[in-house]
Order: sequence, then structure tokens, then C-alpha cells
Amino acid sequence: MKDYILDDTIAAISTPPGHGAIAIIRLSGTGAFSIAKEIFRSDENFEKLAPWRTAFGKIYDNKDEIDEVILVKFARPNSYTKEDMVEINSHGGGYVSRRILELLLDKGARLAGPGEFTLRAFLNGRMDLSRAEAVSDLIQAQTELSLQTALNQLDGKLSHRIKEIRDEIVDSTSLLELELDFSEEDLEFVNRQELIEKIGKIKSEISDLIFSFRVGRIAREGVKLVITGKPNVGKSSLLNRLVKEERAIVTDIPGTTRDALEVHLDISGVLFRIVDTAGLIHTDDPIEKEGIRRAEQHLKTADIIVHLFDGSNKLEKNDQKIIDKVEMLSSVNVIRVLNKADRDQVLNKSELCRNSDQILSISALNGSGIKQLEKQLLKVVFGKSENRLQQTMVTNVRHCDSLKNALASLTDAVGEIEKGVSSEFITVYLRDGLDSLGKIVGEVTSEDVLNNIFSKFCIGK
Amino acid sequence: MKDYILDDTIAAISTPPGHGAIAIIRLSGTGAFSIAKEIFRSDENFEKLAPWRTAFGKIYDNKDEIDEVILVKFARPNSYTKEDMVEINSHGGGYVSRRILELLLDKGARLAGPGEFTLRAFLNGRMDLSRAEAVSDLIQAQTELSLQTALNQLDGKLSHRIKEIRDEIVDSTSLLELELDFSEEDLEFVNRQELIEKIGKIKSEISDLIFSFRVGRIAREGVKLVITGKPNVGKSSLLNRLVKEERAIVTDIPGTTRDALEVHLDISGVLFRIVDTAGLIHTDDPIEKEGIRRAEQHLKTADIIVHLFDGSNKLEKNDQKIIDKVEMLSSVNVIRVLNKADRDQVLNKSELCRNSDQILSISALNGSGIKQLEKQLLKVVFGKSENRLQQTMVTNVRHCDSLKNALASLTDAVGEIEKGVSSEFITVYLRDGLDSLGKIVGEVTSEDVLNNIFSKFCIGK
Repeated sequence: MKDYILDDTIAAISTPPGHGAIAIIRLSGTGAFSIAKEIFRSDENFEKLAPWRTAFGKIYDNKDEIDEVILVKFARPNSYTKEDMVEINSHGGGYVSRRILELLLDKGARLAGPGEFTLRAFLNGRMDLSRAEAVSDLIQAQTELSLQTALNQLDGKLSHRIKEIRDEIVDSTSLLELELDFSEEDLEFVNRQELIEKIGKIKSEISDLIFSFRVGRIAREGVKLVITGKPNVGKSSLLNRLVKEERAIVTDIPGTTRDALEVHLDISGVLFRIVDTAGLIHTDDPIEKEGIRRAEQHLKTADIIVHLFDGSNKLEKNDQKIIDKVEMLSSVNVIRVLNKADRDQVLNKSELCRNSDQILSISALNGSGIKQLEKQLLKVVFGKSENRLQQTMVTNVRHCDSLKNALASLTDAVGEIEKGVSSEFITVYLRDGLDSLGKIVGEVTSEDVLNNIFSKFCIGK
Repeated sequence: MKDYILDDTIAAISTPPGHGAIAIIRLSGTGAFSIAKEIFRSDENFEKLAPWRTAFGKIYDNKDEIDEVILVKFARPNSYTKEDMVEINSHGGGYVSRRILELLLDKGARLAGPGEFTLRAFLNGRMDLSRAEAVSDLIQAQTELSLQTALNQLDGKLSHRIKEIRDEIVDSTSLLELELDFSEEDLEFVNRQELIEKIGKIKSEISDLIFSFRVGRIAREGVKLVITGKPNVGKSSLLNRLVKEERAIVTDIPGTTRDALEVHLDISGVLFRIVDTAGLIHTDDPIEKEGIRRAEQHLKTADIIVHLFDGSNKLEKNDQKIIDKVEMLSSVNVIRVLNKADRDQVLNKSELCRNSDQILSISALNGSGIKQLEKQLLKVVFGKSENRLQQTMVTNVRHCDSLKNALASLTDAVGEIEKGVSSEFITVYLRDGLDSLGKIVGEVTSEDVLNNIFSKFCIGK
């Protein structure tokens, strides 16, 4: 670990900005108690306040009272950061809490950067890196699935799994390194065939984790579902119907710019980010052209596409044009759905697909078939992973990349073994694999990686 | 007091919505402990947790873990509401805290209305009504002056002053009522001339409080300052210069619609809401006409008007037109200011005012004279009230109205005394005065008044 300064005291407001009943101002570091003592006046003696006990008092800036507050001391190492910490619960509202924060900074605290409390918790050994990252995921969670995967990771399930895999690699590496000590005697402590099998088993475990990333990412970020189809086929009606049946989520992340037509839905705990595209039909109108450009962009980035047809009419040239366009732009799952099931059905399902069972019929008007469509969506999302909440799930691109690097190193190691090279060359690759896995939990890491991870946290955590 | 239900348990999220490091969920009422116990699991025994002591644990919805939290029990009557209370500090972020709140509601709590915790604090006798109202003012505070006046009120300074005045009235009333008991003997315990003098003294104390409302309202709501003047006289430049010299405040009250040209500035602790009006010159253009209509509206509602002239040019017909318009529309203080002091000065101050010392010269370009202008603004705001933070200050329209009613009743009482009527008629008016004053601290109040007051609070306070 590089030169992080841990001998100063950081402070931040830990509640969201805006008007609320209560705000929390947090202080962590060697000076936390002495700084808090300077500004807190109470019937109780600050020095004698028992850790973890709340105390009522007032914050003063010299002679001026600033607020009535509740204060808690957390003495190291029994705190979130493992340092001395103070939490001040003040009245909510921007001015009061900012005033208290400024006072703490005047008295010698430094404004904490994003996630710096959690960074300290990590640097001081309270949690490993993947657990620290779960803290941020937990705060960002929007559905039950994202919450549960974040909690699993916070509980250390991923860390534990990575540790088991690393231990297995370490076993093999140690034996190989033992061979080095006896290299002149040309001993082979590790049977090469058994070693290949063992590494193969480890590789398959890593592959499983990489595979879990698909579901893990869905848990964390949701599924981008694009509804397409020719004009007046009922795309907006379908969207409205889905909103009616399920819980629409209003995201309150400040600064998020969203497509005007993007709706967030929680279907059985999975977040669907649904986009209703404008038509995809050729036009000369410049504004509509821009609409088509955007619609095509959405198709390219979709996780699932629902292509809507009018079941009460014959297949038209425009339907076919969109089928072609979707095939050209996207390689993801396309669910073809006949709308307007409330009218006489004219369109022949076999025109769309040889296996016509796979075509769903719905009515956005009266809601028939909507539940089946939702089931189909969930089936596509989870694929063969029957247990949605696998014990260990990778949700983070950084973790997935590290796993892929580890897998590549192990593949290289197997290649070397098959070439019959001596153990020292094999261990180089095994050590590389260990390092890649170590990056996930933060045993091997760089300042850049840490800065990158914690810059995505909110201030005050 | 009417039938407020106090035997149930209320719950709410007390931190602002949005993503933050920590959220607080609050629970108050007879069931607070039993409900919290059902969902909180910890190494520590919930029953044995000492009040005011924080405990680490996890929130569970049956088998599902929801979050790691810090929990505090506050046992009645030593809590904000004087009821059993529990505060749960969860991870911030909308989903987690909403999930915990929903769980509390499932277990039998009821969603708290706006300000309902503070309402309970009032109903249970923890604080009187004017102090409860100060809690909301404190949260809304945007400047030092508004913070300090809210704190004074929260500390009970206003309540104390009202009590003193009421005691004085009660003294006189009691003596008059004693006369009633001896009415057949026609005794006069209270000398009528002394009584008139005594009531006169009380009236003057009440008048002082009513007068303090002007400054008090400024402390709470700020000053609306309108900058006017003919086109190209430098109105926007002056606004920009003020923003440069002082701290611009971005209000974060959700749903506030603001004039596009309104800027909030904190000048020596006073909030100035500054509006730069469009020109006021006659035009036939319909869009500009709408601009003029709005500018006139701003002049009508201004607390102070700064009328800007171009010191480097002669007075024009348009300057005179605006002088006339301002006089017609507004009766508030107008500060006339010559801009462009950085150029040769042509305009003769005596053309604008006989006492030309009162005309300020500034340069919005280089900043000269700006500090003098700010001083002048503060002088106008505080007028003769030299001590800005009088011990007791009325900031609330409701309080001001009650004081005016009390004053009117006392004036009526004096009128009755002078008519020489018997004590029973006098006491009627004195009792009315007492009632009006009692409304301020909530000794006399109605459910409607309470609903009106607490509906302006935020949820969770």
C-alpha cells in the first residue's frame, strides 16, 4: 500500500443534501475526540462519555450556539474506520449541517473525499476490498436482487470463495517451489498430470464465477429492455400496462440524465430499464431521422429486445424491415410478441417463427398475456442459472476482469506444464494468477485502483 | 386539545431522500421497542440494551437480511417525543431505507405525517408550540441570522417573554375578579388610573414584539431586493459583481420554482433575494410586454429597490419614466445609485435628490462603491433596530397576528375602563388578550391550527 495519510482527521456530512429532519456529520481520525470536545457542550463530561453512548448537547462556535445535537463517540478500534470516530446528529437542513462541518474544518479536520471513511476501514484492515465495494453497491441498490447480492458480498461470501481458490493455488505453488530447492536432485514432488487436473478444477471454479457475472451485473445494474415495432403497434400501451402491473421505480440519483422514454420497473426483484423506441422506419424528416438514430443506438445496447406485432393485421413490409434491422444491429435475445389479442387474430405465428409456441400473444389493452411475457423476460434474464441467488456472485467489472486474468494465467501455466518445462517457469504463471485474484480482495492493489474505486462512493461514507 | 391518537407507533425516514452514506429511520410510540425487537438481531440482547446506547446489528425480514445497522433505544420520557423511541441508522440509498420502513409498517407501525414527531413532543409537553415551530425554522435556515433567530426561539426566549407578559395581565385580571366577589360592597381593589397605566406598559411591550417582526421576518425569509433602471445601465453587471463579492446561496428546497433572474446572496448573515428586472420601458412587442408586467409585479412586492443610473451620461427621459413608475408602484425604500463611476461623471446628483450625499456612486465594472452599497442595504434592513439580534424576536406571521389581536383586546379593555364600566366587562377583554397570547405558545389552540403548523414540517421530524 502506498503513502495514504492516516494520521489526520477527516470530516463530512453523511446524509444526502436537501431538507430533512436529521443530518449526520461524521469525524474520523486521531483528532476526532479533541476536535469534537472543543465545540460540544453538554451536561455530561465529554472525556467521560462512554463509547457507543449517545449524548445530548449543543454545538458552539465560540460564543455562538449553532445547534442542539445528539453526539456519539466511537473509540478505536470499535468503529467503522477502526479509528476514533464521532457522529453528530444535527437538525437537518443544509445551513445548519454545513455550518457544523465548517466548524470542524476550522478546528483542524480535513474534508473527507468520496468514500474516504470506507477507504480507511479498508486500509485499517476492517474489511477487504470486495467487501468495501459492496458498501457502495448497497447504497446504490434499487431492487431486492441488487440488495441481496450486495449483502452477500458485504458478508464476505465472495472474499471467502476467492480465498479458497487462492489457497488451492498456493498449495500447488508451494510444492513446485519445494522442487526448486531440490532442483539438482531432479525430484518431482508434484505429479504433472495430477497438477494439470487440479489446475483444471480451479479453472472451472473461476469460470463459474465469471459466468455468474452475467446475472451479477443484472442484479447490480438491471436489464436494458428495448421495445420496438412499427408505428401504432402498441409500444407505449405495453409500457403503460407494465407500469400498471408492476412497481415503477423513480431513481433519485442526482445528475442522472435519462432518456425521456426510459422507465424503471421492478419485476420480481429484477430491475428492468425499459426503453420505448421511436419508429425505425425510413424518413426524410431531420427530427425523425435523429429519432431513428437514437432508436438504433438503443437496439445496439439492449440486453433484451421485445419486438411487437399487430396480431389483428397481416404482416407488413414495415414489420419485416424492423426484423431485418434488429438482426443487423443486435445479437441479444429477441422476444416476438403479438399485441391486440383482444381483437380477431389475423397474423399467422408461423410467419414469424418456425416454432410458433415461442411467440406470445398479449393485449396491452386488457392485460391478457402480460404475466406470461414477464415470466418469459425473467427466463431470458436468468437463463440456465436456476438459483438466482447463487451463494457467490460476481457483480463488479473489476472483479470479473481480475478473474479473467487469473484464468488466462492458469491456462498459460497448464501450457507450460504440457511443454514439460521446469517448475520455476510454471510457478511464474501460478503467482500471476494469485496476484490477479489478490486484487479482488485488495491484497494486491495500487493507489490508482483504490482511487478509482472510492471516487465512485458518495461523500461521507 | 382534541383527540389526537397517541397510543400508536409512528415511523418515518428522517434523512433527506437521495443517495447518501447513512439514512435514519425513526420509530416513536408505545410499540416502538416491541416492533424494533422483532426485526433487529444482534449479539446484544435487545431488552437489555441500555437507553441512549448505540448497538450494532442486522435488520431481518424473517429469513432475509436487509442491512447492517446501528440502533439506539430512547426510553420514555427521555426522548425527543417523550415516548419510547428507536432510531435505526442504516446504509443510505433509497431502497434499503424504504425497505426497512416498509418492514416497520408491516409490523404495526403507522407512517408518520409531516412533523408528527415534533407534534408528539408538543402534545406530550416536551416543548411549547412556538419552540416546536422553531424546529422547522431551524431546518429551513439559510443564513446565520435566520439560524440564530430560530435558535433563540427554540431556546424558549419568545415563550419566556410571552409568559412574562401574560403573568402581568393575569395579575390585573385576578384583582379585578376579586372585586367581582365583593361586588355588592362596591369595593375597588385596583385603582383604575394605575390599571390603565399598567395595561399601557403591557401594550407597549407587545408593540415592541410586533415591531420586531419586521426584522424577524427578514431573518426568516430574507429581503427581496429589486434592481431596476433603464436598459444598458448595468443591472446585470451589478448583480454579477454582488455575486462575486458575496456568497451566492443555492437553495435546495425541492419544488421551489424561481424566477430565472433571482439570485440569493448572504450579505453579513442576511439573505437577499435579488431580482434583476427586465426594462420597464413601453413597448408594443407582446413578449416584452409580458416582461414589463413581471417587472412591475416585482417592484410591487420588493422590500428594497435599487434604482440604477448611468453616471457617465445625462439624465434621460427613460430614467424619469422609471422614477415615476417606481413611485407609483411601491412605497418601500428606494436606493438611487450612479453606476459607471469608472468613467467621467456627467450626471449631477442634485438632479436626483436634494440631499445628494444619499446618492451612491459605484462601478459594477471594477467594484468601487460596492461595499458602501452593501452597508447601505443593511442599514435600510435593520433601520433603527441597532441590535440586530434582539433577545426576543417574532419571526412568524401566526405569532404576529396573535400579538396584534392581544393588543386590540387590551386597547378595548382600556376603552371599557375609561367608560367606567364594572370589572366584569373589563376582564372579558383582558381574558381575550390572554387567550391570544396563549395561542402563541399553544396553551390555547385548535386542531386546525396544529394541522396547519405541522403540515409545513418535513416528514420524519
